[in-house]
Amino acid sequence: MAEIDARPLDTLAIVGLGLIGSSIARGARQFGLARRIVAIDRDEAVLERVRALNLADAATDDLAAGVAGADLVILCVPVGAVGAVAERMGPALKPGAIVSDVGSVKASVVAAVAPHLPVGVHFVPAHPVAGTEYSGPDAGFSTLFSGRWCILTPAEDTDPAATARVQVFWEGLRAIVETMTPEHHDLVLAITSHVPHLIAYNIVGTAADLEAVTQSEVIKFSAGGFRDFTRIAASDPTMWRDVFLTNKDAVLEMLGRFNEDLAALARAIRWGDGEALHDLFTRTRAIRRGIVAMGQETAEADFGRGRPSDPAA
Amino acid sequence: MAEIDARPLDTLAIVGLGLIGSSIARGARQFGLARRIVAIDRDEAVLERVRALNLADAATDDLAAGVAGADLVILCVPVGAVGAVAERMGPALKPGAIVSDVGSVKASVVAAVAPHLPVGVHFVPAHPVAGTEYSGPDAGFSTLFSGRWCILTPAEDTDPAATARVQVFWEGLRAIVETMTPEHHDLVLAITSHVPHLIAYNIVGTAADLEAVTQSEVIKFSAGGFRDFTRIAASDPTMWRDVFLTNKDAVLEMLGRFNEDLAALARAIRWGDGEALHDLFTRTRAIRRGIVAMGQETAEADFGRGRPSDPAA
Repeated sequence: MAEIDARPLDTLAIVGLGLIGSSIARGARQFGLARRIVAIDRDEAVLERVRALNLADAATDDLAAGVAGADLVILCVPVGAVGAVAERMGPALKPGAIVSDVGSVKASVVAAVAPHLPVGVHFVPAHPVAGTEYSGPDAGFSTLFSGRWCILTPAEDTDPAATARVQVFWEGLRAIVETMTPEHHDLVLAITSHVPHLIAYNIVGTAADLEAVTQSEVIKFSAGGFRDFTRIAASDPTMWRDVFLTNKDAVLEMLGRFNEDLAALARAIRWGDGEALHDLFTRTRAIRRGIVAMGQETAEADFGRGRPSDPAA
Repeated sequence: MAEIDARPLDTLAIVGLGLIGSSIARGARQFGLARRIVAIDRDEAVLERVRALNLADAATDDLAAGVAGADLVILCVPVGAVGAVAERMGPALKPGAIVSDVGSVKASVVAAVAPHLPVGVHFVPAHPVAGTEYSGPDAGFSTLFSGRWCILTPAEDTDPAATARVQVFWEGLRAIVETMTPEHHDLVLAITSHVPHLIAYNIVGTAADLEAVTQSEVIKFSAGGFRDFTRIAASDPTMWRDVFLTNKDAVLEMLGRFNEDLAALARAIRWGDGEALHDLFTRTRAIRRGIVAMGQETAEADFGRGRPSDPAA
C-alpha cells in the first residue's frame, strides 16, 4: 500500500467557476487543502465575481498560464466542453500533475480527455454527487459536498498515489469517496440523477403547454406536488443538455425501464386495480426511510420548507 | 350580495384526524374559528393521540353522535371512504348544517356524498392544496394551509351563504380561496398533483427493482436528484390509491400528454438534438420563477434543505 500524501497541495487550478467550481474553491480554502488556488474561466464577468468574492489567489482567462504550475487541475465545465479544454491545456501541464473533473457523466469524459493529456500526467475522473438548482460563482458554498458522495473512476493502470491524492482532497472537502468503473457510474447516475431530471424537465414542459389548464393555475396549485419537480427543472440547461447527449445509452435504457413500469401503473389505474397501486405506494416509503437513515436527506416534513413557527401548536 | 357571516362557528366536527384533519383542528382553535371542536375517528389509537394532544373539545368514534350538533362537518378521510361516511352520518345532521371535505378529487366526491345528504343540509366540497409526506394526528400543524390555495367546488344551486361560510372558514386558516367546477378542479390537479405523484411513485419503484444497480447505490447517490422524488413517493398509500381510482380519466389524459412529450424528448436524446433539449431546459426555469414569485415555494437553494452554516464562506 502506497503511503498516502495528505499534505496540502501547492497549487490547485480550477477551470470553470460555477456552482461546483466555486464551491471547491471555497472549501479548499476553508479546509486548508491548497497553498495557492488559481481560478480559470473564459467569462470575464465570472472572473470579476471571483475577484470580488476573493475565491482564489489568482483569476485568469488564460488556460495554459493558469494550469502551468498546478499540482491538481479540476475541470468544472459542462461535460460537453471538457475535451476541448483538455486539448488546449494539455501541453501546458507540468509533469506529474493530476487532472480531475466533476462531470456527471464519466465514460464520455474519459474518452474526451485522456487522449489530450501528455505522458506523465495522471487523470483521475471524479463526480461529486451534490448540487443545487442555482448556477454561477455566487451560488457556491464551502459545505456543498459535506456528507455527500464523490465517485472516482480511475482507469486500471492509473497510479494509485494519484488516485489517493484526489481521494484525500475530496475527503478534505468532507465528502465520502467511492470508486467504480466509468460505465457502472453512468448506469447508476442514469437512474439516481439523469432520468429524474429528464422527467422533471418533461412534466414541467407538459404543464406549460396545456390548453385546458392555464399557466397561472399550474403555478397557483403547484403545492400539490408539481413544485418539487420545478426545482430540478430549474437546473443549468447547458450542463444538462450535455449530460443527456453524453450518457445517451444508459439514460435511454433506464428510461425504457421507467416507461415499462409506468405503462403497468397506467393499466392498474385504468382497470381499477387498487391493490397493485397500494402495494407500490407502500414499498416506495422504505426507500425514503433508507435515504434519510443514510444522512442523504432531511427527515423534516416537506424538506423543512417553510418551517412552521409553531409546529406543535 | 348576501351578508357574510364571519362569526366563529358554534360547533365544528372533523371526521378523520390525520395530517389534514388534525391541522384543521389546530388551526381552528389557534385562529378562533369555532367555539367547540368535535373530533371523530374510527381508530381508537388516533382518538387517544387527539386527547393527548388536546386537539379537540370532544373525541369520539360515534359518527352520528359526533356530527349531530355541528354547524360545519368536514370530512377528512380518503376520497374512497367519503361516500360511506356520508351515508352513515346523513340522518344525524342538523337542518342547515354545512358539509365539506378536503379530498384531492372533487367530481367523484360530489357523486359519492351528495345523494346521502338530507334536504336542508348544504354541501360545499373543498380541497386545500397543501400537505407533507407525513400522516396521522401528530403530523399536523396549525399553519399548514397558510398562504396555500383552497379550492371550493360548490354546485350551481348551492346556497351562496353556505359557500361564503366555508370560504370564511378557510380564510380564517390563512388559505387563499378560489372557486371552480369539480371537473375543472380534477383536470388541474391531475397535472399539478396527481401525475407528479404517479411518476414519483413510479421512478422510485423502477429504481428499487433494478438488477444492475443495487438499492444501496440508489440510496447513497440519491442526492443527484432522485431523493426529491422519494419525498412525494412517501405520501399516504391509501389516500393516493383512492385519488388514482377516483380521478382515473383526468389522470390518464394528463399522463398521455406527459408520455407524448417524454417520447419526443427521448427521440431528441437518441438523435443528439442538443438544441431541442436546451430549449426545453431553459423554458422550464421560468415556471419555477413564477411559483417562487407567487409565494408557493421557497427561493432558497435546495429547498433550504441542509442550510449551510456558512453560505457566504
